[in-house]
Amino acid sequence: LQDQLREFAKVREWEQFHSPKNLAMALVGEAGELVEIFQWLNEAQSRDLDDQERARVTEEIADIQIYLLRLADVLHISLASAVTDKIAENDRKYPVEESKGNARKYSRRKS
Amino acid sequence: LQDQLREFAKVREWEQFHSPKNLAMALVGEAGELVEIFQWLNEAQSRDLDDQERARVTEEIADIQIYLLRLADVLHISLASAVTDKIAENDRKYPVEESKGNARKYSRRKS
Amino acid sequence: LQDQLREFAKVREWEQFHSPKNLAMALVGEAGELVEIFQWLNEAQSRDLDDQERARVTEEIADIQIYLLRLADVLHISLASAVTDKIAENDRKYPVEESKGNARKYSRRKS
Amino acid sequence: LQDQLREFAKVREWEQFHSPKNLAMALVGEAGELVEIFQWLNEAQSRDLDDQERARVTEEIADIQIYLLRLADVLHISLASAVTDKIAENDRKYPVEESKGNARKYSRRKS
Repeated sequence: LQDQLREFAKVREWEQFHSPKNLAMALVGEAGELVEIFQWLNEAQSRDLDDQERARVTEEIADIQIYLLRLADVLHISLASAVTDKIAENDRKYPVEESKGNARKYSRRKS
Repeated sequence: LQDQLREFAKVREWEQFHSPKNLAMALVGEAGELVEIFQWLNEAQSRDLDDQERARVTEEIADIQIYLLRLADVLHISLASAVTDKIAENDRKYPVEESKGNARKYSRRKS
Repeated sequence: LQDQLREFAKVREWEQFHSPKNLAMALVGEAGELVEIFQWLNEAQSRDLDDQERARVTEEIADIQIYLLRLADVLHISLASAVTDKIAENDRKYPVEESKGNARKYSRRKS
Repeated sequence: LQDQLREFAKVREWEQFHSPKNLAMALVGEAGELVEIFQWLNEAQSRDLDDQERARVTEEIADIQIYLLRLADVLHISLASAVTDKIAENDRKYPVEESKGNARKYSRRKS
């Protein structure tokens, strides 16, 4: 997938625009569009999207994934290892028994 | 990976917090942290990170990937299909010959 | 206030970093930190912050306001006129009688 | 201005949507749109916007300012005091002589 995206950028001569700085901006822009879909919905509504909302979310998460893959690629970071390492770290950081709790405690712990 | 993350949330009773609305917020929060690493660097510097910056970027992209996987999972959206469909759409939308150009044209076209 | 912030940047030789591109990144970074405070709280909790959360929100909105003032300043845009114009436009765009409704309609209309 | 915006929301029965959580999301969404304007421009281009880009930036900073005013209002936080306090704090935190430097040092210090 990363090869495909790299080739896509290369043949269009877009690699010049794809600095990590710019890709990070593009990614947060798409994340902003994702949030806009949910901003006026309550949590229950956000779990029960209609077809139009669902289609928009699908597009935005695809855009985010694409920029994330590009960013990892141009920086030669292995996204798979990064995720695996982070999950292992989270496992240590949030032991099951101590990690159950209300949103506020959860929030404190996670921020 | 999604199974693993779902189980991680489940045993900690965090599923209640993982509404799509909240996960989208968490994702944009991590994207904001990613952007902060690059905000005062110029583009050339952003392509040539030192070890500390690199470690921070690796963490942030892992966090973003994890929330993206969780979000797709709770909404039963296939992230792989979403990406494949989007790449096909981009291929149609940006024909190679017409898509070469300067940043401003690129910007217009992409926004 | 803008004069004060401009002077603040100038004496520290930070004007070189304060391009509109970089200031926009800094702003979205702070907005991301703001969102992080609320991400695991439900809407009722978000209306009823404890002292610590309140102090964090106060800091983040100050940071956002400062970057917004700087951005308008470096681009010579009048923030006051921009807001006044936008309110007038919103008044036309959302007539009172047609604008009452549920979150979903609201969301459609606003996005 | 805050009175005007509060009234605007009230007559449209939008106050129910304007929880701090939702307003923070709306704000970061607008900040994301702001960043999108700059993402493929280099820093020099971002200092020298054409009319269309300038108009878009003006709209986005107005939207951000409006949501910031609303957020401060619903939480009864004084935006003016928050900014004044923050500038005083920054003055202490970044003494002039020690604060001059390159982007990387600047970045470390500010993050």
